[in-house]
Amino acid sequence: MANLQDVATAAGVSKATVSRYLNRSLELPDRTAKLIDAAIIDLDYTPNPHARRLSLGRSDTIALIVPNISSPFFAALVAAVEAEASDMGLALALYATLNRPDRELSYLDLVRTGHADGLIFITNHAGTDMLAAKINRLPRCVVVDENVVGTHVPKIFCNNRQGGWLAGRHLAQTGHRHVLFIGGVDQMVSGAHRFAGFASAMNEVAGPDYRIERTCGPYTVEAGRNAGHAFVARDPASRPTAIFATSDELLIGLYEILSEAGIAIPHQVSVIGFDDVGPLHLFAPALTAVRQPVRELGQRALRRLLAMDGTDPDKPPSEELLDVTLIERNSVAPPIRPFHRNPNSED
Amino acid sequence: MANLQDVATAAGVSKATVSRYLNRSLELPDRTAKLIDAAIIDLDYTPNPHARRLSLGRSDTIALIVPNISSPFFAALVAAVEAEASDMGLALALYATLNRPDRELSYLDLVRTGHADGLIFITNHAGTDMLAAKINRLPRCVVVDENVVGTHVPKIFCNNRQGGWLAGRHLAQTGHRHVLFIGGVDQMVSGAHRFAGFASAMNEVAGPDYRIERTCGPYTVEAGRNAGHAFVARDPASRPTAIFATSDELLIGLYEILSEAGIAIPHQVSVIGFDDVGPLHLFAPALTAVRQPVRELGQRALRRLLAMDGTDPDKPPSEELLDVTLIERNSVAPPIRPFHRNPNSED
Repeated sequence: MANLQDVATAAGVSKATVSRYLNRSLELPDRTAKLIDAAIIDLDYTPNPHARRLSLGRSDTIALIVPNISSPFFAALVAAVEAEASDMGLALALYATLNRPDRELSYLDLVRTGHADGLIFITNHAGTDMLAAKINRLPRCVVVDENVVGTHVPKIFCNNRQGGWLAGRHLAQTGHRHVLFIGGVDQMVSGAHRFAGFASAMNEVAGPDYRIERTCGPYTVEAGRNAGHAFVARDPASRPTAIFATSDELLIGLYEILSEAGIAIPHQVSVIGFDDVGPLHLFAPALTAVRQPVRELGQRALRRLLAMDGTDPDKPPSEELLDVTLIERNSVAPPIRPFHRNPNSED
Repeated sequence: MANLQDVATAAGVSKATVSRYLNRSLELPDRTAKLIDAAIIDLDYTPNPHARRLSLGRSDTIALIVPNISSPFFAALVAAVEAEASDMGLALALYATLNRPDRELSYLDLVRTGHADGLIFITNHAGTDMLAAKINRLPRCVVVDENVVGTHVPKIFCNNRQGGWLAGRHLAQTGHRHVLFIGGVDQMVSGAHRFAGFASAMNEVAGPDYRIERTCGPYTVEAGRNAGHAFVARDPASRPTAIFATSDELLIGLYEILSEAGIAIPHQVSVIGFDDVGPLHLFAPALTAVRQPVRELGQRALRRLLAMDGTDPDKPPSEELLDVTLIERNSVAPPIRPFHRNPNSED
């Protein structure tokens, strides 16, 4: 098989020139570029480590299973893993499940029977025993972002409890005592932890004198719109004075409906988000949110996977929690009216 | 190998129940769900068509090579292909190249030596002979969104010339005669066509009495910021009165810098975008843009690929153009000052 030197010789340039041309760190005159291209085509040179290593029985390909690519959070997470894989000269094969269990199981089978060296697995719904069993059967897998109960593999999550706590503390310290939590179902670890942290912070700051309403569903724009419609339809005098929308997509859906209804943020209701991957700083007003360290999450996932060597199978697998931060912008203000606990209300 | 009926029998439910449970169209009581999960694990049932067909020598897997996943436009395009593949019971393997030629070539080799039934290829830079040669060697490939010159495969693009024309006509009809075009390099078909359409519409509406400035670069947020900085640094009296930013990412970068500089849209400068995939309707003001039919683009790409049967190789491959539309929002207004052509200016 032709190597880099063969191509350089045929094109009449140095090996370094060919290499830098191929990884785009060098702009070449058209004529030189065409000479190199022609040499590569003539020699059928494969300028990548993967195909060469494939022939030695290794793939140097990592698989990544993710719910969907169109969510800003997952898109950024995938991009982070991709950039890290690229730096390491690894290929990355992505599979999007649309959050459907049957597709998750298909892709797990594809990865098991395919040529990937390892898998990073991300789901966005409460897992099942079957899913856990398939994951446990893989030789190298890391579970990221959302837990799959019953899996015995390394796991890396953002600190969801801390994120909920930061949001709750911020709203409570700004004076809010009647708040709406829009979030994932309790069967999902992220949903349960964000809520637990949120409630705990409200309690720490406000004492017993507060009220949290909660609406649960998937982390989608549609679910955010539904929560927004329900909020808008209520008597303004009994609405919560602040809303915690626990994903970028929930926040975007909510924001659309509040805008349409002419409800001003933060003058008529305060809003705080979670993820902070979408362009929330460009909205009007710029939205306050808890930021997940999405790049770090992707990088750590890939490094953790590559560090797995299959030895010491009896050692319990590690679980890593990454810190989140509160990004304060302009969507939280003091409440428009004082809180009066009404013992006859519906909570 | 266990089939659906075996699982249903072992779990004591109907085949339809298992099937609907697996594709998530049915919520089951916890107890029933656990019975089905247990049966599937015990029988090592593979509930997907792909793995079964793999054992018959077909993969039913389509590959998709895309520049990056974190751009809203590509994320939406990938999501459209994924949804279509899911409906057809096909697996989709994605590879993100980070727009680097060496990674494109690696992935093309991976696809050629791998088990995919066909490839949808998307790049975001001017192609090379080498890239075209590799693509032409694949048995089934469709090139989408940006042309790779020299490839003899079916192609599907959005009508970039029409999109540029719609933007140019809108600005010219609103009264603008001195405009800034921020776009891709001319070696990219999208950049060349968007500019040609834009200039042609300005000329149709305004006659000879207009001036277009042009700045070229990649379709990135960073390039949008650079163009924004250059705009802000100019003497306000000689700035263009309107800007056409020809991708969502260019628009977002530009918008950031104009906001920071306190330049009000549309009162001090009109702005129009291209793509309209990101949440431009939530920005302040909501941004006018040319919308690409990104879902249709993804669907058509997959259908065209599946329709290729390898017969009639001498027939020139089809090239399809999809219509784009102008979405008017609040970022374009009449110019702040009349146009005076200055024959001594730098254009």
